[in-house]
Amino acid sequence: MSTPSSVSDVGEHALIALIRDRVPPAPSWVAVGLGDDAAVVEPERNLLEVFTTDALVEGIHFDRAFTPPWAIGHRALAVNLSDVAAMGATPRLALLSLVLPPALPVTEFTALLDGLLALAACHRVRLVGGNITRSPGPLMVDITATGSVHRRRVLRRSGARPGDEVWVSGQLGAAAAGLASLQTAVVRDPAYAGCEAAFLAPEPRVRLGTLLGRNRAASACVDLSDGLADGLHQLAAASAVGIEVDSAAIPIAPAAEAWFTALGQDAVLAAVTGGDDYELLFTVSPRARRRFLTVRHQLGDLPLTRIGTVGTMPDVVWTREGRRERVPSGYVHFR
Amino acid sequence: MSTPSSVSDVGEHALIALIRDRVPPAPSWVAVGLGDDAAVVEPERNLLEVFTTDALVEGIHFDRAFTPPWAIGHRALAVNLSDVAAMGATPRLALLSLVLPPALPVTEFTALLDGLLALAACHRVRLVGGNITRSPGPLMVDITATGSVHRRRVLRRSGARPGDEVWVSGQLGAAAAGLASLQTAVVRDPAYAGCEAAFLAPEPRVRLGTLLGRNRAASACVDLSDGLADGLHQLAAASAVGIEVDSAAIPIAPAAEAWFTALGQDAVLAAVTGGDDYELLFTVSPRARRRFLTVRHQLGDLPLTRIGTVGTMPDVVWTREGRRERVPSGYVHFR
Repeated sequence: MSTPSSVSDVGEHALIALIRDRVPPAPSWVAVGLGDDAAVVEPERNLLEVFTTDALVEGIHFDRAFTPPWAIGHRALAVNLSDVAAMGATPRLALLSLVLPPALPVTEFTALLDGLLALAACHRVRLVGGNITRSPGPLMVDITATGSVHRRRVLRRSGARPGDEVWVSGQLGAAAAGLASLQTAVVRDPAYAGCEAAFLAPEPRVRLGTLLGRNRAASACVDLSDGLADGLHQLAAASAVGIEVDSAAIPIAPAAEAWFTALGQDAVLAAVTGGDDYELLFTVSPRARRRFLTVRHQLGDLPLTRIGTVGTMPDVVWTREGRRERVPSGYVHFR
Repeated sequence: MSTPSSVSDVGEHALIALIRDRVPPAPSWVAVGLGDDAAVVEPERNLLEVFTTDALVEGIHFDRAFTPPWAIGHRALAVNLSDVAAMGATPRLALLSLVLPPALPVTEFTALLDGLLALAACHRVRLVGGNITRSPGPLMVDITATGSVHRRRVLRRSGARPGDEVWVSGQLGAAAAGLASLQTAVVRDPAYAGCEAAFLAPEPRVRLGTLLGRNRAASACVDLSDGLADGLHQLAAASAVGIEVDSAAIPIAPAAEAWFTALGQDAVLAAVTGGDDYELLFTVSPRARRRFLTVRHQLGDLPLTRIGTVGTMPDVVWTREGRRERVPSGYVHFR
């Protein structure tokens, strides 16, 4: 049996050709796509542009032992689309910067691409450029994504005002439980397959973000890449307000609750401080409630849960087991 | 004496604050700058947008033993501005994705930023967003840069036609000699200080690129990140033409020639296959010669040298020591 080809066997030009083969034909507003020094694109008329960048690094954000290549590609794009959605924008373009270990099999390279491009196709995001270089160690996937948004429909972190309601999409904790399950379980328990999928292939809340923006239904918005606790603190600090959280209302994914409880952990605490939930946290002002009803009507199945109220007193607090406490700060990078 | 703080001592929020402190106030067309989920920017009216991304990886593109942090920051932005310039565009925005070893001293982090922001200020490029994450090993600096260009003034790689003249900016080989000097010399020889500077702090040819674009003086253009030989092959292949190179005309930096000759190497071959020359290679059609004179007049000191002619026969050839040969393909990533 011959050894499968690695990316260093085929070389950079062949890898770029593999990408070009997989990217659908460019629309007319892409003047220069893949293959020149840079991409050239016509901006959308009368809209503002949103830019974000986020990297996934092997050994930090994923472990190749239990993260299949398609999931690495999917997640790398998903975390960026989540940031675009949190601004109320519609995603448009992506640039892909790959830092590849020379021994990476070409089959894993193409699977990573396929995972990324499948999610891009779902959201009509065009891959217009990128870069491939060698890594001395870890695999790294860095993506820059852009989006478009009307000037008056940008969702900032800083717009929350006392009296606004605090809402969150989806269910929390599944990704953290899924990661723990992937890291520890020798035999996969099908009860946690949904949690594992939540970690491997998060669904960015693109439709919710654009609906909240278009309908001017949210006064502030942030995505929960670093968990609910961190998101609450970020939003409160940026808006210079406080938030009173109803801890009993926090929507925990049932399988995540089962996972953490089985380990003797505080499920609510684990779910709000665990990262990788790409849900949106947003605030709704009293005069936007009708517009928010329109959003809920248009949105369909995704659950939205009210978890608290914006107040004047600074800080983020909740009452648990009869005690009023500060919500912990959540996940901190570099610590 | 206390140990200097590392990036993991101060944490992500403090690092972001250090960046915000150093970035000049945003102009009015930046609706949301650093600190939200994504940046929001007003596009330039009636212009197309250029996007490029390029990463510098420790152990592949630089060695921290001899590359000071300011130079890492400078080079990371320079390689991207070079790509924007090669499209005939004026650089506008940058996004910075940092993957940092936890032990990196904060002083090196700020020096890296200062090197990057000094070059950004020179070219009026705004840093509008970014990301910081931990590295399990190498330091990586990944930048996405954007620029603006009129629709009819985009410089592609594919526009060269038989009869066009082939030109190159600056002098070649200095960066390759400088890198070799940095890697090998125990005691720095001041004769090669200029070469070392060419490697550490390349000057992207932003003004030349925009002048060639604005005056519609070039039929095709590419930057020489991977050396002249690679650039010639890229341009010829994209334009489906051949190039006849006058090897005696190739402008080699005198110090680079001295370096390679002292090592018993073929200086021309070393200079054209060495990478990291961020010069522009471009073609000028017979009817654009007058517009090209205007560019040279406006450009000032930067030397421009005619090194060949576009022909119909495919491939890139030169005559050396009486023998007509194919120009070697140059630097290949992953090999």
